[in-house]
Amino acid sequence: MATTLARASEAMAAAGVDALLLGPGADLRHLTGYHALALERLTLLVARADGRHTLLVPRLERPRAEAAGVPEGVELRDFAETDDPYALAAAALTDLPPRPTLGAGDRLWSTFLLGLQESIPAASWLRASTVTRALRMRKTSHEVEALRRAARAIDRVHAGVPRLLRPGRSEREVGRDIADRILAEGHERVNFVIVASGPNGASPHHETGARRLRAGDGVVVDIGGTMDGYCSDCTRDYVVGRSPEGYADAHTALEAAQEAACAAVRPGATAASVDAAARDLLTDAGYGDLFVHRTGHGIGLEEHEEPYIVAGNDLALEPGMTFSVEPGVYLPARFGQRIEDIVVVTDAGGERLNTLDRAPVAVGG
Amino acid sequence: MATTLARASEAMAAAGVDALLLGPGADLRHLTGYHALALERLTLLVARADGRHTLLVPRLERPRAEAAGVPEGVELRDFAETDDPYALAAAALTDLPPRPTLGAGDRLWSTFLLGLQESIPAASWLRASTVTRALRMRKTSHEVEALRRAARAIDRVHAGVPRLLRPGRSEREVGRDIADRILAEGHERVNFVIVASGPNGASPHHETGARRLRAGDGVVVDIGGTMDGYCSDCTRDYVVGRSPEGYADAHTALEAAQEAACAAVRPGATAASVDAAARDLLTDAGYGDLFVHRTGHGIGLEEHEEPYIVAGNDLALEPGMTFSVEPGVYLPARFGQRIEDIVVVTDAGGERLNTLDRAPVAVGG
Repeated sequence: MATTLARASEAMAAAGVDALLLGPGADLRHLTGYHALALERLTLLVARADGRHTLLVPRLERPRAEAAGVPEGVELRDFAETDDPYALAAAALTDLPPRPTLGAGDRLWSTFLLGLQESIPAASWLRASTVTRALRMRKTSHEVEALRRAARAIDRVHAGVPRLLRPGRSEREVGRDIADRILAEGHERVNFVIVASGPNGASPHHETGARRLRAGDGVVVDIGGTMDGYCSDCTRDYVVGRSPEGYADAHTALEAAQEAACAAVRPGATAASVDAAARDLLTDAGYGDLFVHRTGHGIGLEEHEEPYIVAGNDLALEPGMTFSVEPGVYLPARFGQRIEDIVVVTDAGGERLNTLDRAPVAVGG
Repeated sequence: MATTLARASEAMAAAGVDALLLGPGADLRHLTGYHALALERLTLLVARADGRHTLLVPRLERPRAEAAGVPEGVELRDFAETDDPYALAAAALTDLPPRPTLGAGDRLWSTFLLGLQESIPAASWLRASTVTRALRMRKTSHEVEALRRAARAIDRVHAGVPRLLRPGRSEREVGRDIADRILAEGHERVNFVIVASGPNGASPHHETGARRLRAGDGVVVDIGGTMDGYCSDCTRDYVVGRSPEGYADAHTALEAAQEAACAAVRPGATAASVDAAARDLLTDAGYGDLFVHRTGHGIGLEEHEEPYIVAGNDLALEPGMTFSVEPGVYLPARFGQRIEDIVVVTDAGGERLNTLDRAPVAVGG
């Protein structure tokens, strides 16, 4: 972990950033290994370009921080319920230039950023990801293996989904069973379970609800969890009984689009070009207007992180980057379809970590 | 909901705040009923003192926002993947005074606040809770009933805990069973499950782990979930077989302290005085230094919200306020104890929504 912090300090110095101020979340975990709770009490890593780091924690979190093993070179400081944590954060920066440039953790709550801005009024602020994104986007082989294990686990869950989908069962009942399976397959946490049946499938982030499955439904099942800190995320499509009109043709086009996007992954290709590979095929097939979202998102310690596979993102892909490739087709009031695999950029191209067949799976109707 | 938004506008005008900018979370849900997903794409309610409100959502979230039923008087605007949402937020404020005062949602991610600060450079920023705290702290009778139902549900879970605690079972195994029970009793979400056995109990936020229960353990079980949007949170203590040395005396003092704090709850009493009621008794009994946290936190749409029951908080309690009363005693390397009930301030004093007996429950050892 000391190495990761040292690399962060180098990146700060190169970017002209004096320090990063990071709350609970993926950056903190990446740099220190500490999985802090998101609380209304401030937990803050002050990571400096000059290598003098401080981790501020509420006193009652100190045992958890110590158990996590704070890396060498990080001073652990705790504060009592009635102390002012912003003054302590400012004190960890007093010897910096009078107008320091500071990076705020992207997901740090605004209540904390406003407190820090007030206590360090001369500072200029930018997003910590300006520095950390490059460190986090390119995964180590160890991280890729963690993502591979998580992908295999979620594939095992999908393999068991057909026997959970029966006419008359509600999305919510199916969703609970899937959540149990996500844990049983080795994840420590369920991040989301989307079971979007029939017309509900046309909302990409449909909230799994009371609707009961019936014959003729297309069902989008998009599920993910966290395993040893790294996220899984995979979508497959199911059909109860006979598929609805137009479903098979759309899915054939979608499979080709997802395949084309995966084939477009290689070092040097831009994120936007991967999006375009899927989008162009769907547009040619007449489904372009129904593909209402970007093609994918990075994945790692967070479910969604950089790089985003979206039009306009000219980032050149590099080996070790990991992201979803998940085009979808959404027919309002009728059905939705989405195919999602996690892909890792290799020297040779792209490798899919999810390997289950991508055709719609017919279940008893 | 229109009424809640109208009250918020009145409160903004009274506080000299031109608009609140709120992301996904409890304030948004309270004002609009919309339970938005926390995403890397901006979702933002621009709620104005003059009543001209805009809800900005990513295009693919529009179906969820529409299904939630955006209140009358709120213009729903969506944006495409490649649009600039900060420009849209600024556009919803262009007719305000040149140097507006804006409230940022307390839990809005810093990446969004920094984007907004850049696109609206002349604004002064404060925490949205400056305005919303008064609206959210005093619960309506409808909200109190929701908290009561959640409290009863978590009490039923605690009533079943003794049969889950057996020597040889790991904290994690027990925790999974409890999580299942939290859902089975009617919560839509498990918020946390702390099973802290033996010496682990001395860390108030211990992460439920691999340690196996053994005879002579004290076990702190602190659990909560969300039911119809409102949170439950209750802690009870259990002992496997014979209690460890010193345990019974400490718990007797703790029960008296928790009782005294609950008895101190009444309209007009300060939050600090409730904290002092528990702390003074524990200090007199010789356990003051071992009570390492505040006495409680508000609860409602969020697990932890205002008012905080802590030294220095001179807020006068009012009928309808709801919070935890949860003193604890922590003996490093030996055991911990905590008793937690949710209390609602009534005209007559305070009423505990959790009603299970508070003595340690002996389980088979």
